Amino acid sequence: METNRAPVVSSDRTGVDSDMAGDRKWLVGVDLGGTNIVVGVLPIDGGNGDVLGCRSVATEAHRGAKFVVDRIVGLIEEAMVEVIATHGGTRADFAGVGIGSPGPLDRATGTVINTPNLGWRNFPLRDLIANAVQLPATLDNDANCATYGEWWLGAGRNVDTLVGLTLGTGIGGGIVLNGEIFHGVSDAAGEIGHMTIEANGRRCNCGNYGCLEAYASGPAIALRAVEGIQAGAESLLPALVNGRLEDLTAATVYEGVVLGDPYANDVMRETAKLLGAGIASIINVLNPAMVVIAGGVTRAGEHLFAPLRAEVRRRSFKSAQEACQIVSAQLPGTAGLIGAIAVFKKETYGAV
Amino acid sequence: METNRAPVVSSDRTGVDSDMAGDRKWLVGVDLGGTNIVVGVLPIDGGNGDVLGCRSVATEAHRGAKFVVDRIVGLIEEAMVEVIATHGGTRADFAGVGIGSPGPLDRATGTVINTPNLGWRNFPLRDLIANAVQLPATLDNDANCATYGEWWLGAGRNVDTLVGLTLGTGIGGGIVLNGEIFHGVSDAAGEIGHMTIEANGRRCNCGNYGCLEAYASGPAIALRAVEGIQAGAESLLPALVNGRLEDLTAATVYEGVVLGDPYANDVMRETAKLLGAGIASIINVLNPAMVVIAGGVTRAGEHLFAPLRAEVRRRSFKSAQEACQIVSAQLPGTAGLIGAIAVFKKETYGAV
Repeated sequence: METNRAPVVSSDRTGVDSDMAGDRKWLVGVDLGGTNIVVGVLPIDGGNGDVLGCRSVATEAHRGAKFVVDRIVGLIEEAMVEVIATHGGTRADFAGVGIGSPGPLDRATGTVINTPNLGWRNFPLRDLIANAVQLPATLDNDANCATYGEWWLGAGRNVDTLVGLTLGTGIGGGIVLNGEIFHGVSDAAGEIGHMTIEANGRRCNCGNYGCLEAYASGPAIALRAVEGIQAGAESLLPALVNGRLEDLTAATVYEGVVLGDPYANDVMRETAKLLGAGIASIINVLNPAMVVIAGGVTRAGEHLFAPLRAEVRRRSFKSAQEACQIVSAQLPGTAGLIGAIAVFKKETYGAV
Repeated sequence: METNRAPVVSSDRTGVDSDMAGDRKWLVGVDLGGTNIVVGVLPIDGGNGDVLGCRSVATEAHRGAKFVVDRIVGLIEEAMVEVIATHGGTRADFAGVGIGSPGPLDRATGTVINTPNLGWRNFPLRDLIANAVQLPATLDNDANCATYGEWWLGAGRNVDTLVGLTLGTGIGGGIVLNGEIFHGVSDAAGEIGHMTIEANGRRCNCGNYGCLEAYASGPAIALRAVEGIQAGAESLLPALVNGRLEDLTAATVYEGVVLGDPYANDVMRETAKLLGAGIASIINVLNPAMVVIAGGVTRAGEHLFAPLRAEVRRRSFKSAQEACQIVSAQLPGTAGLIGAIAVFKKETYGAV
């Protein structure tokens, strides 16, 4: 008879309980971004997805790597103290830290290979944090984490295979297949924002031409809006930025849509069409159960989603499109840290 | 004590032997296409990939579904007789039949849902064949099978994650992740040919605009060549078809390249660039170890592959592109039936 107890592995991702972590009750998640660091705590089973001890602070990457690491460590300590103060217990109730960071990364060594936003190269982020807080830690790509968070406790909690897009300064992407993040053979999979949608199109920050990101990221939406205005389009948008077109952002376009500006609506519809071309490609290639879209532009609601879904219908195969919901993310601000916690669970216990 | 013997499952795909099938020695593969039916036999372990009893016969789909099924059944019987004649044994040495067919399909029921090329709807192809030859059978998509064949015994036999493209009348695609065909949630994944590479581009046969297939399939290559000639390009190509531009095919363009025609070379280079945009998208999204390209156009060799690889380098992320070889298929004509046999093994024994 075997007496060793194998780690508890469950395929029911919300059914995994704290048994797997012995007596430990909590996990800490870190979402490191170019602009902000978000840190928070969840019970090991995820609870109802309400993040405890959550704090968001400016990254201030220009102050250097040591500063940023110290800031992350400080936020983790603060969050743990807050949870202990409100829920009792001790530091020994915390099982580990999941970290999401811009990439590319080497997950095996927990190293950030290169991140232009932070100016880091071959930086051993995971172990620096783990050693400082004396807890085990895992590291994965921020966009993967955001998608995994939506899969675990957000919009995708009832599906197994989904694709996530975050429309912000760039377009981040993540792929979850059968309940696991799909990393590809060198941790580089999921760059949905860098699919070509116009072979001879706009230059993208990645060096390529015609990427989805070059049309539908926040700055790209603003740029297209400004170009149209400079070419003579009638619109409320210039008035919304006091004539300073350099201040016009994707949020201004959204504001114009809400105010009923036909030109702003055109820009939003064009955004939806371009995004629809990219999402239809993803649906034709990966046939997921869901595409989850996050980011400020989703505040446009049906002004974005109605033309987007119509474009996807026009462009993708019926059997794939009928199997796929296109929805807004449900965990704005916390999907990244929640997904980083899910990665920790998956890597440490074999299940989420 | 358990006395039942579990099926032998091995993760070493070339190490799986005929133990798994008891005393049976052979498997039959069927590759059903709109133009031809190809049938052949392999030993259960795949041997050296040399197909025995191989025959290819016109499909003649216009003669109706019963005719086509009878023809497939006849070819299977002939192939088995030939293998018995040359290698001895009996019909009892055959373990089953793997079938590849145009889709969409329902793999669970073995039904062809709809295939315009053959004019079939909800056609129970798998069971009609299985009943006629009195052997178990499996059914999967033809492009998936071609990719899986290359993975098992062809160009991809040393990698686990690859993407296959077949450039023919259309562009078929297949995705193998960690040694398994990736089917998506409704058996519709892998339509690489129907990624949008020009959002407002050429109309595709699928109804979409700007698909890769609308630029880089055989007929699309020919069409682009003819358009350029009609617009006044100087070229040898018209002479190669006695001035009958309607007879110009992708093979003519290839012939022109070999003869040193600069215009034909331009068309080939443009094909490589458009294909490169699509393949770079796939590499950015899936980060595979290999992209395998099959079809007549690969006869152009480095005239195609050199500019294709250059375009992919220009368009994809370094860490993904460095991990990915772009190669020509190694099993022309037989990849489909070999992959159909691999699908049978995977579904029946749990391993290939």
